[in-house]
Formats: sequence, C-alpha cells, structure tokens
Amino acid sequence: MPDVAAAGTAARVDAMLARYRPAVVAGLRAAIDGAGVGFATYLRYHFGWEDAAGNPLPAEGAGKMLRPALCLLCCEAAGAAPERALPAAVALELVHNFTLIHDDIEDGSETRHGRPALWGTAGVAQAINAGDGMFVLAQRTLLRLADSGVAHERVLEAARVLDDACVALCDGQQADIIFEQAPTVASARYEAMVGGKTAALLSASAALGAIAADADAATVSAFAACGRLLGMAFQVQDDALGAWGDSAATGKPVGDDIRSRKKAFPVVYALEHLPADRRDRLDALYAQTRLKEDGVAEVLSLLDEAGARDGAANAARAWAEAAVASVRDIPMPGDIRADIEALASFFVHRSS
Amino acid sequence: MPDVAAAGTAARVDAMLARYRPAVVAGLRAAIDGAGVGFATYLRYHFGWEDAAGNPLPAEGAGKMLRPALCLLCCEAAGAAPERALPAAVALELVHNFTLIHDDIEDGSETRHGRPALWGTAGVAQAINAGDGMFVLAQRTLLRLADSGVAHERVLEAARVLDDACVALCDGQQADIIFEQAPTVASARYEAMVGGKTAALLSASAALGAIAADADAATVSAFAACGRLLGMAFQVQDDALGAWGDSAATGKPVGDDIRSRKKAFPVVYALEHLPADRRDRLDALYAQTRLKEDGVAEVLSLLDEAGARDGAANAARAWAEAAVASVRDIPMPGDIRADIEALASFFVHRSS
Repeated sequence: MPDVAAAGTAARVDAMLARYRPAVVAGLRAAIDGAGVGFATYLRYHFGWEDAAGNPLPAEGAGKMLRPALCLLCCEAAGAAPERALPAAVALELVHNFTLIHDDIEDGSETRHGRPALWGTAGVAQAINAGDGMFVLAQRTLLRLADSGVAHERVLEAARVLDDACVALCDGQQADIIFEQAPTVASARYEAMVGGKTAALLSASAALGAIAADADAATVSAFAACGRLLGMAFQVQDDALGAWGDSAATGKPVGDDIRSRKKAFPVVYALEHLPADRRDRLDALYAQTRLKEDGVAEVLSLLDEAGARDGAANAARAWAEAAVASVRDIPMPGDIRADIEALASFFVHRSS
Repeated sequence: MPDVAAAGTAARVDAMLARYRPAVVAGLRAAIDGAGVGFATYLRYHFGWEDAAGNPLPAEGAGKMLRPALCLLCCEAAGAAPERALPAAVALELVHNFTLIHDDIEDGSETRHGRPALWGTAGVAQAINAGDGMFVLAQRTLLRLADSGVAHERVLEAARVLDDACVALCDGQQADIIFEQAPTVASARYEAMVGGKTAALLSASAALGAIAADADAATVSAFAACGRLLGMAFQVQDDALGAWGDSAATGKPVGDDIRSRKKAFPVVYALEHLPADRRDRLDALYAQTRLKEDGVAEVLSLLDEAGARDGAANAARAWAEAAVASVRDIPMPGDIRADIEALASFFVHRSS
C-alpha cells in the first residue's frame, strides 16, 4: 500500500470516479425515466435531478457513486471492459438509494444531501412506495447484464449475490433500529464492530464487477473479500468523522453523532479500552435521553482518554491494507491496482 | 364455462387450494426460517404463525394463497409437475405479503386478517424494513427455480416477469395513494377501471407457472392473459363485496368501502351510467370528508339506481369467461381445465 498521504491519491480517486460517473448517471436516468411509471418523479427528486415540483435542476445529482465505481473498477481489474458491468453498477446505486429513502423514514431523518428527505416532500406513504419501486428497478436493471453479453448462469449468480447483500442490509437495519432504542452502549457493541450494512453492499459491488467480467470463483471470492474489507474501513472512518469531523467538510457540527448518541466505532472502542469506572461514566452519559453540550464535551474527552481516535485510524488502516492484500495475487491490467490502492487510501483518509 | 352456480364448483376450488397449500406453507417457512435473519420474527407474526411475543400459534396462517395455487395450477396445465414451479409460487406469496405489510402502513390500516397489522405491533420502522426483507426473500426464492431443473434462461425470464409485475404494483399503489386524497369520484375513474394491481400479480402467477413448465412463448402469453383477466374478475367481485357483501362472510360491515369513500368499481360504474344530476349528487356525497350513515344509504341507493350491482356481476363474469377462453386452445392434462374453470367461477361468485 503506498503512502496514504501521498500527493495524487485524492486526485487519482477523483479521476477514477469522474471516469465512470457519466455512464452510471446515464444508466440511472434510463432505468428511471424509461420505466414509464408515476413514482419516477419521486426518484428524480431523491437523486437531485428535479425539485419537489418536478422542475429540472441543473446539477447531475448528489452522491459520490462509490458503489458503481468500485463495481466497474473491479470489472476492469478482472480483465473486462467496464461497460460489461454497467447494469450491475446502476443496480447497486439504485439499491443504495432505495435504502437511503427507507432509512430516512425509519430514522426520522429530515435531511438528505442538504435537501428535505423524500418523505418530507412526498409524504411517508409515497416515499415507502417509491423506495419499493426503486428496489424493483434495481432488480430489473441487474438482469440486463444478459444484454451486455454476460452468460445467463453468471447473471443468476449476480442476482443471488445482490439478493444476499440486500438480506444482510435488512438484517443490519433491523439491528440498527433496535440499537437506537437501547439505552446503553454495551448492548450496541455488535453493530459498530461488524459495520455489516456498509460492508455487505461494497462486497457485492466488487463481486458483481468480477462476475460481469466472467472471473473464476476464486477471483470473485477475492474481490468480494476486498469489497467487504473496504466497507469496514469506510464505515470506521465514517464513524470517526461523525465524532471528530471538520464541520465545514462534513456539513455536520463536530460531535454530531455523539449528540444523537449514535453507537458508532469510537464509543464502542472506548467502552472496550477504558477502565471500569470511566466506562460506567460513558454508559451513564449515553443513557441520558438528551445529551447536553457539556455532556458531548465529556464524551469527547472520554474518547480521547481511551485513545479512540488513534484506535479508529488504526482499525480503518488495517482494514484498508487487508482489502488491498486480498487481491494482491490477482493480475490486473494497466493502472487498475493503483486505482484500488488509491480508493483504499481515500476510504481511510477522507475528510468528507 | 360451466354453470357457475353448479354444485361442486366451490368444493373443487377448495380441494385444489388444499392440494397445493402444504407445499407452499413449507416453502414459505423454509424461505423465512432458513434465512437466519432477525427480521424473520416480524414475518412470522404477519403470516399468523406466531403472536407478537414470538410464541407459536396453532394455525398455519391466514390467506387463501390464491397466487401460489394459480401458479402451480398453470404449471400443471402446461404439462409439468407442479413441484417445478414451487419456488415461483412461494415467491409470489412473499411478494403479495410484502405489499400487504407496506400497504397497511401507507393506508393507515390497523387490522389484517383480524389481528393488528404488523406496523401496529412492531412499529412503522421495523415494519417498513420487514417488508423490504420479505421482498428480498421473494427475489431470492424465485432464483431457486434453477434448483428445480428450470433452465437458467427461463429463470431469468421468470425474474423479469416478476419484476415487471412488481413495477406495475408500485405504479398502481402510487396512483392509489393519490386517488385516496382525490375528493371526487371522477378523478378516480382510472384506478377502478384498470384494477391493475391485482391483475398484474395474478398475470405473473399464471405466467410463472407456464415458464417453470418450459412452455413456449405463445403458451406463456396465453397464461399471462388468463391470469390478468382472472385478476380483473377477482378485483371487480372484491369491489362488489366491499359495497354489498354479507358482513358475516366478509368480516366487514355492509357498505364499508362506501363509508371509507373507496373509489371502487360500483361507484365508478354508477358515475358512468347515472344521468348528470344524479351523478353530481354522487360526486357531492363522495366529496364529504366524513360520510354519515344516511349518506352511505343514499350512495347505496344511487348505486342501485345505476344498476351497479348487475354491472359489476356482468363485468366480473365477462372477465372470467375471457380468462377461460384465453387458454381454450391449450391442451391440458387430466382435470386441470376444470380446476381453472372452477377458479374463474369462484372469483366471480365468492362471498368472502
């Protein structure tokens, strides 16, 4: 793994994302606009292509589209043209966004990418249904791998991989909802340590790219592991940004995840590394229904005391290194390995 | 089509449903219990296998399981053993129940099969997520057609047919939600005339049976038409029961759909067959936010005046006859055609 702070890493990731983005956006628009359905208007709002009244917006929408990029990158890494995996890449972004629409309702989150969440403008009933519709469009788009020349048997394998990831997403979300209602940190250990929701879909993203490239089972398995480990790195860094992120970059105030008592990696880490009396204090603070500003400051200080910031950075780095290592023995064309390494570094060092 | 009032028709349908039911229930249990997921507990509650505390209930669950039965029947009709289509049959029942879970939230319906709807016991967040999980399990189960010996290409075709039906379901539900908020009947004409939601999934049910039997394209198409027409008959009779059904059989008070100002077939029919002044009166009654008992009685009297009861019966019968006719030229083994005819009669004449 190259020096993660090396100049050019971020630029390489930006270039990689920019290389894939137009085809993914075009594929999303074809899947949604081409479906001829009334609920498409809600999906266009969600993606930031239209305002709530249905007027087009100038931007091409929010989101980094990391999952499609990872899918297309792994298709290239496995030796095929990225276009072959495009239906899978589009399906992954549709699945990701279907979960965002439903999660916002389930969590009562009012804002998404700086705009009102869909349920706020369309109502809960239409938002549930639009999420369902997005999910069906994802399934339908994935099957179009057959039109890219992927063998029928491999398309079925791809559908199974995506379904298994979605089962894991729903299972993880069920646990999330329970944990949100749990008063203490201790009961929430599982969630943060596993980070399953993010890892499951990133694992599927990488695996689907390899399947579309008609890679053998061992190669698919290596990419699935790479994606899963990247997902762990991504989630831990996400949790670190939620605690210590620069508010100018993340768009959220410092300590925001702590204020909402999110049971994320830093708190779980602190719980496991603090002496018993300090740990009980952390539990007691988190048990409060509403954490005041001095409470947030005290939690941050307990996290410092536990070394949670270094703990998170080390964990993210270890997972990113393991991700790169998991595909070390797989031959890749051109600069593709450098792109994967840059993506792993970005996941660890991103500030937004 | 035989005399629909013939003795034995209902008994034949009951025997047909009973023939298929055990395998479908076993398949549902395998798909749900075997998934190893936390949200399965909510699905078991929904199906009536457990109470809200997770204790097993003696019954094998509610629902006639018409969609699986139609699927397995059409598989037999197309010349294959019904077991071949079992994964599709189970997937159809999972899809149907996923829509029930979400529809109950979207409509604010508090009761399902005489028990509190899932969202009432699990909360809205878990119920949305459990519905999503049920939908993924449906997709995953359908792919198991490949394990029944169905060719990969046909499994993909089956997945496409189910996806297309689900797109139609979401599109129909989007229109339903809008129509529920529409004050007048006139604006709701489309919904009731098309009855798309029921017809789409019953069409897929019949088509999937034929696909599992490896039937040719013309045969699949004929069964798809048969299922769609059966769905229209089913929906019109459902709407008639909502207006005039015997409360002892339907479990709902007479006129219940009118009390909730549902824009169903009888009202739409009346709108098109009443003279202008009477039609305006019907519109005015339906425009009231809360329809009192004398208003319900007046609507029922306007429906009588329009001949809506006969109109509904004739429409249901015509669709059922067209359904039977659409597969007239397809050779079928044994008594299968009589089962299809009995099912069509049942759809028209059922009282619950």
